[in-house]
Amino acid sequence: MNEPGRPPADAMTNPRADRVRDVAKLAGRSGRLKRRQFFVEGPQAVREALQAHRDCLDAGGTAVVEAVYATVECLKRHPELFELASPKGSQLQVRIASDLVLSAMTDTVTPQGVVAVCNFVDVPLEEVLAAKPKLIAMLCRVQDPGNAGTVLRAADAAGADAVIFSNSSVDIYNPKAVRSTAGSLFHLPVVRGVELAEVVSAAKAAGVGVLAADGYGQLNLDLLQDESAARAFEQQIPDSQYALEEPTLWLFGNEAQGLAGEEKALADHRVAVPVYGEAESLNLGTAATVCLYASARAQRRAD
Amino acid sequence: MNEPGRPPADAMTNPRADRVRDVAKLAGRSGRLKRRQFFVEGPQAVREALQAHRDCLDAGGTAVVEAVYATVECLKRHPELFELASPKGSQLQVRIASDLVLSAMTDTVTPQGVVAVCNFVDVPLEEVLAAKPKLIAMLCRVQDPGNAGTVLRAADAAGADAVIFSNSSVDIYNPKAVRSTAGSLFHLPVVRGVELAEVVSAAKAAGVGVLAADGYGQLNLDLLQDESAARAFEQQIPDSQYALEEPTLWLFGNEAQGLAGEEKALADHRVAVPVYGEAESLNLGTAATVCLYASARAQRRAD
Repeated sequence: MNEPGRPPADAMTNPRADRVRDVAKLAGRSGRLKRRQFFVEGPQAVREALQAHRDCLDAGGTAVVEAVYATVECLKRHPELFELASPKGSQLQVRIASDLVLSAMTDTVTPQGVVAVCNFVDVPLEEVLAAKPKLIAMLCRVQDPGNAGTVLRAADAAGADAVIFSNSSVDIYNPKAVRSTAGSLFHLPVVRGVELAEVVSAAKAAGVGVLAADGYGQLNLDLLQDESAARAFEQQIPDSQYALEEPTLWLFGNEAQGLAGEEKALADHRVAVPVYGEAESLNLGTAATVCLYASARAQRRAD
Repeated sequence: MNEPGRPPADAMTNPRADRVRDVAKLAGRSGRLKRRQFFVEGPQAVREALQAHRDCLDAGGTAVVEAVYATVECLKRHPELFELASPKGSQLQVRIASDLVLSAMTDTVTPQGVVAVCNFVDVPLEEVLAAKPKLIAMLCRVQDPGNAGTVLRAADAAGADAVIFSNSSVDIYNPKAVRSTAGSLFHLPVVRGVELAEVVSAAKAAGVGVLAADGYGQLNLDLLQDESAARAFEQQIPDSQYALEEPTLWLFGNEAQGLAGEEKALADHRVAVPVYGEAESLNLGTAATVCLYASARAQRRAD
């Protein structure tokens, strides 16, 4: 491994080198699919990737990070990246590269000093359901990478067990989506490229209830939360239709149109986040956060 | 007023006309401050502006909308804009303009067919506090226009009585911020350009409690919510430190650094949204939504 502060003779300085082009290709969906790799940028995200890499190797798994490219300046400011990049038995090297090289790799004018090339981290649906999940978020036909990342980050914060992206959703390995996750992509299992109907029937078979987030839903999230609180205080609930304490898969739709009629029809219930003011609705990220936190609170109180 | 479908002789077709340049100047902060005007784009936002205009005139107030520019095609698709633009006694005219003109006005490649020039709608802090508010959101040093708009929209959805922007925050009349509000800018009172310390002391004097949203806060939002629910079920709460049912001003800080130490010190309490997973935090928009909805639920249950 190179020491920080001394640019080694083999520092990468040619932005047109094959290896640089190979990383740059990961900005596009087809480039990523071909190699089943993506990249993350910046000290915080690379730190999270390296931590996941170390945890994965410690647990006998395969490598998460394939390569790290960083400027001398960045490594001086973040010496912990060196530490993290050298778990026992790892072949991982931090390669020194110029700002121009990092700029060419990530197609950004102001590169953040460090880039890690990572292998896809998503897992099969079966693996998620076999682990007896309590809380899962699924995004259906979500198009904006920032929204996809925001919901993944919120699901992580709410302690969800997994996030699932339907096959018609934006690619979670898109650089902007990765950035919006703020590292959460490495914190909880992610499933991608699956059909909504397939997920719903597998979830139901695994004893997981399915709620569709729907501004026009017949069930009010506040009512479900109040009923859940009432149960915690051992009050009688006459006609509760759904207990938020139960294992739940939440479905969230496209940011502009929400869930389609046939998508909602697959769920056990359609649940609306109440709008108390004059807003037509919440945006996708905020609505999903309210739903996931409502489940998380009910489940943790019941534990 | 022009009829839809017939481009009139006085349709605006010159993107370099003075009037077009005047609108375009509203994209910049100094241009807006000079004329105390801003613009909104697209049928939905213009509809909300015109509705606010009508409500304001009906209530004896001054004009919200100064001018509307639209393409013939847009007016064919949205004839309701004509209706809304002609309240009794209004001098408001819908001017027909070409796509090129709208593009030059808004500096967008794909203009949305209609633009309204609006007068600033913000109100003085005193007016908000005199109306006995129950729930207010204040943004301190928020820099991203999308975040500012998202929080305003979430505050509207939560039924907040006002949103306040500190003098070091991004301008809520920035076109991107206006777009992110999805019309909420016209739904509830907005205060801008005020000092945090001034707002906090005025709020306290008006009997409004002040909570700082702070990932490191000593009070947990879930605890406050559980205590509030317990009170609703007439349980004994031994040492409650803050009742969410009370009138509350929430403070939210900069998206990267949060609230500064001296800002937090002004609040009655620092409250953390619990993070159950491995995420470091929620982003500003989602954290603010969880806080505001927690207050809204507690207050509505107590009513």
